Amino acid sequence: MTTNTPQTLKGFRDILPAEKQKRDWVQARIIKVFARYGFVALETPTLEYAELLLGKYGDEADKMVYTFTDRGERQVGLRYDQTVPTARILSQYAEQLPKFFRRYQIQNVFRTDKPQKGRYREFTQCDIDIFGSTSPVADAEILACTYDTFKELGFTNVQLVVNDRQVLLNTLQPFANEKLTVFSIVQTIDKLDKLSKDEVKAELTNKGLDAQQASQVLTAITSAPMSDSLSEIIKLTQALGVPSEALVFSPATARGLDYYTGMIFEVKIKDVLENSLGGGGRYDQLISQLSGSEDIPAVGVGLGFDRIVELADQQGLIPTTGNSAQVLITLFDSDNITSALELAQTLRAAGIATEIYPQPDKLAKQFKLADQKQIPFVAILGAEEIASNTLTIKNLKTGEQSTVALTEAVQTIKTQAV
Amino acid sequence: MTTNTPQTLKGFRDILPAEKQKRDWVQARIIKVFARYGFVALETPTLEYAELLLGKYGDEADKMVYTFTDRGERQVGLRYDQTVPTARILSQYAEQLPKFFRRYQIQNVFRTDKPQKGRYREFTQCDIDIFGSTSPVADAEILACTYDTFKELGFTNVQLVVNDRQVLLNTLQPFANEKLTVFSIVQTIDKLDKLSKDEVKAELTNKGLDAQQASQVLTAITSAPMSDSLSEIIKLTQALGVPSEALVFSPATARGLDYYTGMIFEVKIKDVLENSLGGGGRYDQLISQLSGSEDIPAVGVGLGFDRIVELADQQGLIPTTGNSAQVLITLFDSDNITSALELAQTLRAAGIATEIYPQPDKLAKQFKLADQKQIPFVAILGAEEIASNTLTIKNLKTGEQSTVALTEAVQTIKTQAV
Repeated sequence: MTTNTPQTLKGFRDILPAEKQKRDWVQARIIKVFARYGFVALETPTLEYAELLLGKYGDEADKMVYTFTDRGERQVGLRYDQTVPTARILSQYAEQLPKFFRRYQIQNVFRTDKPQKGRYREFTQCDIDIFGSTSPVADAEILACTYDTFKELGFTNVQLVVNDRQVLLNTLQPFANEKLTVFSIVQTIDKLDKLSKDEVKAELTNKGLDAQQASQVLTAITSAPMSDSLSEIIKLTQALGVPSEALVFSPATARGLDYYTGMIFEVKIKDVLENSLGGGGRYDQLISQLSGSEDIPAVGVGLGFDRIVELADQQGLIPTTGNSAQVLITLFDSDNITSALELAQTLRAAGIATEIYPQPDKLAKQFKLADQKQIPFVAILGAEEIASNTLTIKNLKTGEQSTVALTEAVQTIKTQAV
Repeated sequence: MTTNTPQTLKGFRDILPAEKQKRDWVQARIIKVFARYGFVALETPTLEYAELLLGKYGDEADKMVYTFTDRGERQVGLRYDQTVPTARILSQYAEQLPKFFRRYQIQNVFRTDKPQKGRYREFTQCDIDIFGSTSPVADAEILACTYDTFKELGFTNVQLVVNDRQVLLNTLQPFANEKLTVFSIVQTIDKLDKLSKDEVKAELTNKGLDAQQASQVLTAITSAPMSDSLSEIIKLTQALGVPSEALVFSPATARGLDYYTGMIFEVKIKDVLENSLGGGGRYDQLISQLSGSEDIPAVGVGLGFDRIVELADQQGLIPTTGNSAQVLITLFDSDNITSALELAQTLRAAGIATEIYPQPDKLAKQFKLADQKQIPFVAILGAEEIASNTLTIKNLKTGEQSTVALTEAVQTIKTQAV
């Protein structure tokens, strides 16, 4: 395929300043909460040996890994998720990592998935995990940190929909038989939030259950009681400050991946969207399976960064300011350039983000640039102002214009900017 | 190549938490200064059409681009630098970008370069550029912002070694002939900071000059006077607050890339290292060459992020705190768990980064974890403390241990942490 006009590859995107500012705002808040819970950051390379990435999550996943042969004839692949590289890290640096390792990782991953609205081939994953402990305190920490993250972003009606993998397995095991594994039943049950009950029943009968058994499966799973271990985790999560109404037990929630071994959960915003903004749970055997290391119990969550940014933006949670300078200093006379630059230096030294219009030009054009860049203040330093050691400041939001002593410029802008 | 123990690819690296914290500290300060100068962030995809990346900087560069065929039979490549994708952006979004576009871009780039100490195949580039203006004010802004960035990081003796491409061309043109282009002479002169004068002369005679001409070249270039336009840029840069001793005119500084059209400069730390930590200049024709768009004048700098982190670390500029929780709450009795978790919630709500030891354990082991993670405070909440609504806090730096009312926990830790 040749391209005449430059373009991005299908499924890839440019992140222009207005969007990048939103993403940075969300990311900064997420990191703030992660740090408050003692998570530390980790980065792994974009490229790994293909061998590391393949054969870990089944054939379907393998097809979605970007692999190629590099100039040294090595089979390499682009980062597909953050769990597999972290499993490598845990094995490779076992001796230098602390016993209870809490790490966060926010990096791009690559999948050859068919692109569609909101689904890209390069997107950002945002994971926290606690490695090394089977204690329910670790589960509770993950739940509480996840909840706090969404609160910090300003979301209301955050719900953590929780379940225990054991509740599912124990409840559904009686319906399994030689031809139908309990995992296959779980996979169908997992569709209850997308399909109607009748559709789920139909899928179960297609899988070999009779109509009565299919009905019994649904009754059993929707009325299954909470396990003791989940009950303990919920109690601890409440002690960490998560309100009880935010913790919703849902015995039919399965989460697709079958590597979970205990608590599982999804993040939802009640009455706003059906899809989850992230999910996770306990996976005590996966790390040893992935890396061949000794058993390292683990519990964590993966957040859908792109979807979170999109929803936060839709809900008006992200401030629109902050993606520009606060002041544009005008230049309309070559004689005032030095004074303008000195003013810029003064404002910047006081922490005020300042842009200088780079060349003398009509004032109207300069105001237009400030408007286009959403710069809230324009500073005018003409011959009169220079002669009287003053400065004219126009507030583009209010239209207010005032001439103040040059020495008061910083104070005036800071006061009006509040 | 097969691997038994998991490992990273040659030339790639994991960034473990201690190193990541240093990089994040440096990056945050860099961004703070960029924002103060009105630069806004931009991101481009990791993968582009190979066609976009190849044939832009010559055959040698093409060999270093990671290219491959994707599953859709497209020729694709990994980001090689940030200038080419930005040229695409300027052309693709010409109508929505402001006339004077100031952007920063901090992203990883990939090169098949032979790995060696300090040189990786995936590394971070950190660029600022002002597009759309030929005004010397834009040149001065780039110089001042660069200087401020290094000051903000705590470097002293920062030098911007400046020249004007025209000084080089005008001075050396008389020595060019049909067989020897002025650019070839410039390329040799550019080696003056790495080779001795005799070695440079030898290279010039190898290129066809006689010994006398070679000597004249050196004399001419080392004594060439500053151009008027560079003199104007330096005056403006000083108005922006950069001290004159930080601006060093060096008529023989050439910078390898021949796309520069005006001011060129390199960042050095006097008496500390020979190599530059970044460099840039004005390139008024490159953008149209790269993207086929109309002429867009440009001036910018690229900073060597990895080298800056390394030197800042060597010079002790990066605080070692901040890569852990401030407090570890101990658990040594299953009865105190709820109280411990409530305390964690209180501390976190007050902005104190808090980790909980996840399971009851010997106190010695818990102190060991705090030590390993460099957590400065350990909070002990035993039966006695719970009964008396108190808390014992041990400061691991000073060894000091005190028992305070639970309600004073936040205040005590904040006071001691200062």
